[in-house]
Amino acid sequence: MSQSSLFSRHKETLEKAIEVSRSREYWSAYPEMASPKIYGENANKDGEAAFKAYLGKKFDIEQPGTVGTVGSEKSPYGFDLEVTYPKVDVSQLISEVEELRQDWAKASLEVRTGICLEILDRINKRSFEMAFAVMHTTGQAFMMAFQAGGPHAQDRGLEAVVYAYEDMARIPAVARWEKPQGKRDPIVMEKHFTIIPRGIALVIGCSTFPTWNSYPGLFASLVTGNAVIVKPHPGGILPLAITVEICRDVLKEEGFNPNIVTLAADSVDAPLAKDLALAPEVKLIDFTGSTGFGNWLEGNASQAQVYTEKAGVNCVVIDSTDNFRGMVGNLAFTLSLYSGQMCTTPQNIFIPESGIETEDGHKSFDEVVAALATGVEKLNSDDGRACAILGAIQSEATLNRIAEYGKGDNVVLASRAVPMEGFDKATIQTPLILKATDESSYSAELFGPISYVVPSKNTADSLSIVENSVKNHGALSFGIYSTSEEVLDQAEEVACRAGVAVSFNLTGGVYVNQTAAFSDFHGTGCNPAANAALSDTAYVSNRYRVVQSRRHV
Amino acid sequence: MSQSSLFSRHKETLEKAIEVSRSREYWSAYPEMASPKIYGENANKDGEAAFKAYLGKKFDIEQPGTVGTVGSEKSPYGFDLEVTYPKVDVSQLISEVEELRQDWAKASLEVRTGICLEILDRINKRSFEMAFAVMHTTGQAFMMAFQAGGPHAQDRGLEAVVYAYEDMARIPAVARWEKPQGKRDPIVMEKHFTIIPRGIALVIGCSTFPTWNSYPGLFASLVTGNAVIVKPHPGGILPLAITVEICRDVLKEEGFNPNIVTLAADSVDAPLAKDLALAPEVKLIDFTGSTGFGNWLEGNASQAQVYTEKAGVNCVVIDSTDNFRGMVGNLAFTLSLYSGQMCTTPQNIFIPESGIETEDGHKSFDEVVAALATGVEKLNSDDGRACAILGAIQSEATLNRIAEYGKGDNVVLASRAVPMEGFDKATIQTPLILKATDESSYSAELFGPISYVVPSKNTADSLSIVENSVKNHGALSFGIYSTSEEVLDQAEEVACRAGVAVSFNLTGGVYVNQTAAFSDFHGTGCNPAANAALSDTAYVSNRYRVVQSRRHV
Repeated sequence: MSQSSLFSRHKETLEKAIEVSRSREYWSAYPEMASPKIYGENANKDGEAAFKAYLGKKFDIEQPGTVGTVGSEKSPYGFDLEVTYPKVDVSQLISEVEELRQDWAKASLEVRTGICLEILDRINKRSFEMAFAVMHTTGQAFMMAFQAGGPHAQDRGLEAVVYAYEDMARIPAVARWEKPQGKRDPIVMEKHFTIIPRGIALVIGCSTFPTWNSYPGLFASLVTGNAVIVKPHPGGILPLAITVEICRDVLKEEGFNPNIVTLAADSVDAPLAKDLALAPEVKLIDFTGSTGFGNWLEGNASQAQVYTEKAGVNCVVIDSTDNFRGMVGNLAFTLSLYSGQMCTTPQNIFIPESGIETEDGHKSFDEVVAALATGVEKLNSDDGRACAILGAIQSEATLNRIAEYGKGDNVVLASRAVPMEGFDKATIQTPLILKATDESSYSAELFGPISYVVPSKNTADSLSIVENSVKNHGALSFGIYSTSEEVLDQAEEVACRAGVAVSFNLTGGVYVNQTAAFSDFHGTGCNPAANAALSDTAYVSNRYRVVQSRRHV
Repeated sequence: MSQSSLFSRHKETLEKAIEVSRSREYWSAYPEMASPKIYGENANKDGEAAFKAYLGKKFDIEQPGTVGTVGSEKSPYGFDLEVTYPKVDVSQLISEVEELRQDWAKASLEVRTGICLEILDRINKRSFEMAFAVMHTTGQAFMMAFQAGGPHAQDRGLEAVVYAYEDMARIPAVARWEKPQGKRDPIVMEKHFTIIPRGIALVIGCSTFPTWNSYPGLFASLVTGNAVIVKPHPGGILPLAITVEICRDVLKEEGFNPNIVTLAADSVDAPLAKDLALAPEVKLIDFTGSTGFGNWLEGNASQAQVYTEKAGVNCVVIDSTDNFRGMVGNLAFTLSLYSGQMCTTPQNIFIPESGIETEDGHKSFDEVVAALATGVEKLNSDDGRACAILGAIQSEATLNRIAEYGKGDNVVLASRAVPMEGFDKATIQTPLILKATDESSYSAELFGPISYVVPSKNTADSLSIVENSVKNHGALSFGIYSTSEEVLDQAEEVACRAGVAVSFNLTGGVYVNQTAAFSDFHGTGCNPAANAALSDTAYVSNRYRVVQSRRHV
């Protein structure tokens, strides 16, 4: 297929995506329903078979600088993947990629955009295979792995392509400049404008959302003409290896060197991220992970533009509600979903010590807490349903944290280990809810299914604590429940001052920890949890520069 | 005048500016002709009178944190301005501005844009007054001070407004999100998106182009809702004090606190830039000046987004020409204009040691150099014309540098002091041209009217040296003369790899050191001379963030 026809083939998708990124109405390019009608009768079975075919084997990628193999992923559902990936020599990989990246850098905007859209389309067609790969690295339940690891991640990738495309398309390739000179002939010049990618882009993935958190940076850097090295978390390599393979397939088919996109898998014992990040040729870094390493990158990789998503402490404020049951149900699901292993899951729930007003009259602090605990408990009372919501705990550190914090005398709801049929060794745990004693106890992030109910003097006090918490510790989400427009306005003021998105009175099928591509920004870039938002112009516009030439005509 | 009507009043200008920033054709919002027909019969006289009225007086600005006066500007035309400005206490100024900045931050996009366009319009109407202020601080000749300090600077300010406006206008204030749920009712949400300015913006001006180099950052930060503190160079306060006063006038008339824009004048003995730059409330910094301080800002003001334009070493490569006379004339003017005190003036002119081909046949290296020296000498042979082109030398450091380098045995053309009628003590010097001996002699920036002719092995050698020079020492301009399309292509390749704009075969009324707003980018942001370009999306999109709220409808 010729290069420009990939652009034509996906033009409608691109145009619709541009339109909705401006209207911010509902739209998704890639269906989130894991339905045989959409993805094919055998899609599930074929996807599982494709996943299983990787196990116990070498995942071959013919890329420069390979010096052996690496890989020891463990499924949180209790088995070793035994997949190995090329182990790379960093300096060899980087110097070879630097050598070969110019063809891609010089490809036209339409060619690069067409190829990125084709890659996304192919990834979409393999959403079931990806779902199994995401499930057995992150521990997400299958349906979530399908949606968040598949179509939702693909939508976020497309979103980045759209912003970058629009920004680059703003600059004409050629312009005629004609300056009047009164009665004399005008001065006429022809000017050429060339998009210059920054160089090599590094994408550092995380263990819980290997695709969702990596696709925006990967596609933003790729469509702007940079070569991309993908460095997955040692615990979540497979989903990104499949992604890299699809990128390489399309590049190769379209006549480009596939090494424009490479994989730099590593291990916990021999991490590569620092070496990669400090290479002078690496000019862009996208990182999702710990605050410590994110801050290190921002402070040390000064040769690169660094985009980080780090830890945060998300809060919910309960002031009052006219739908107590809906609120409790919504929060119970929010806390349970993927066992709180989302960067957007609330940790601290502020409730006035004097209680709240509801449609059923006043409820005391203890009554609200009891309802919440019961809500979480009931939601996860059936083991099968619990497994489908909770998924498994990705890391041992999170498991240990649940055990440690579960020993205290402030436990409101204990965490229960849930058995899963067919996966004896799966590490599945229901949420642990604690009662906060003092601010120091709940101000740091406790990643995983651990949350605090925090008694506050009143809602003003709750909001004031939240504002300081977001400013000092960062946050990716913030929710409030109130029947008072005045209180909601105050919450919005707090959200604006602290720089965090806010959700009001979520009682139905939308959760504070979920954002919708094209409509909701993920992160704001103005609190310590992240220095960028997914996606906006700021996220893409520094990934390339423009060089011009001019001459008289 | 009501706030929204300022937007309507200037809407046509805004729309035209958006259009040409995309087509990059010729356009200027503010006429560069210092003509009485455009600016009024008495504009020149009134402008001079307005300038003279400032001399020997206190320039009053009623702003927070004033603790005395400061100011000791000297006109390079040989007299003291004796204007004093408020001296500020940095922490007091910053804490008060931080307190009051919210009204401006919350103003609508239309209101802020309308006000910025009105400010630019008022500055334009005072272009003659500004021309005298720029002339007697920078040393620019009157006509240049009028054009570069007036309409051209205003165009660059407008350009920044346009990019920021377009980027912000991309985000709707309100969106309706309606997600289908099969046979059930759709989920419907209303979402609000709020532009959140970063905080306080600091604009650090330079001594040679106080308005031109400050307006992009000033207006980009202001229109995106930030409060702006303008810190002029101690040698070039008046043009920015007038600018700040106009900003404050319009803000006040429109019901805003004028302290949204303040002046932080300082002196060489008690500089304020570091204290201002490190204040936690300062989130944006625009700087034009030395590489040393620019790098310091980039490394130390980590709480802020830092945009720098630093020193560079600009190059011209002569390969061949079919218009030798035009080339020499163009280069002679380029080197003479404002005595080379432009960040875009070429310093190193590479000529093959074996000479070049011209329309008159072969010319040896020495013949080319002699023609260039004669061209510069003749252009400046008439004292009156010389003064009108050269202007005066702004700083003693530059004067000393001319004297020092003029002592060597490699002088090709000596610098001559030019007497100016009416200004006995004006420091006017013709360009000094030196012959380069080895690379170490010409690789550092020698600011002012000092240039090197550099013998190279051949044009390939010239281009290779230029590429390394731009990569290592930075550049804001690059020119080449060649009759060979192949050589021009090679030069464009070098320009792209090194990240610098290139001009081909300039022989007429366009000079390599001049860029046209809306069409030419100033700087690329991808070589050491500057980390940003004037103006593009990257220059504006990080000056604000977006916070959203969402609720069910």
